[in-house]
Amino acid sequence: MKRAQESGGAKPCAFCAIIQKEEAAEIVFEDDLSFAFLDSRPLFPGHVLLVPKEHLATLGDIPARWIGPFFATARRLSRAVEQALGAEGSFVAINNRVSQAVPHLHVHIVPRRKGDGLKGFFWPRHKYESPEHVARVAQTIRAALARIEE
Amino acid sequence: MKRAQESGGAKPCAFCAIIQKEEAAEIVFEDDLSFAFLDSRPLFPGHVLLVPKEHLATLGDIPARWIGPFFATARRLSRAVEQALGAEGSFVAINNRVSQAVPHLHVHIVPRRKGDGLKGFFWPRHKYESPEHVARVAQTIRAALARIEE
Repeated sequence: MKRAQESGGAKPCAFCAIIQKEEAAEIVFEDDLSFAFLDSRPLFPGHVLLVPKEHLATLGDIPARWIGPFFATARRLSRAVEQALGAEGSFVAINNRVSQAVPHLHVHIVPRRKGDGLKGFFWPRHKYESPEHVARVAQTIRAALARIEE
Repeated sequence: MKRAQESGGAKPCAFCAIIQKEEAAEIVFEDDLSFAFLDSRPLFPGHVLLVPKEHLATLGDIPARWIGPFFATARRLSRAVEQALGAEGSFVAINNRVSQAVPHLHVHIVPRRKGDGLKGFFWPRHKYESPEHVARVAQTIRAALARIEE
């Protein structure tokens, strides 16, 4: 697995560190290609980040052969977070370069409810109530994923 | 091609009407599966909507076999709008049900620049300056698409 800045002096990629399990995160999905975990400062609880394991910067950089399986996982996750959080809908978004805090391709998958107050893309972030809260939410998503066919 | 509410008394789908070319739009891409056109009230000029030709409501409804080709087109479009508009990046987003103005799956593909003022997902919309302006922007995107390999 190619990682960003393995040997350079620059700051290593925060998502590569999570994928390598050098940094903690609540993982909700992993396969050969993809890795998904809870955003630690979610828009709403259940806000997932889906990333390719290989360090790629943007949507434009993903190899053609990976697009089908990667976005099949995004589809599954969109249904999973809706079901797991009892949400009415979801928001699925990618920032390429501009507004991209970590330069490793990531798909935001966020549960939505009518009147939830989401007005800003540069949204107010909120912490989870506790480590137990974040673990519980992750678990409900894993359980929902397991019920959804590929 | 299955359309929404073909025979019912309810309002027909606005995007099906565009796909059927009963309603005008600046088309930037079309193949057997997909259809892309400029949003008539863009966030920024070059704001594209990519839709499946078949009437499907959400990301969760898209058949597995279509995911690869549909998102390969999204990838191409993200690169195309960046190149065509001379943008530094792009924003690619799907609203599933909540904040989804037209209940026909659509991917927003929006060129972005640093400091462009995009603060809201419920963003201020702007009209194009003129019909010529919208046609010109569509043409530059078509030209950029033609240069990008599938």
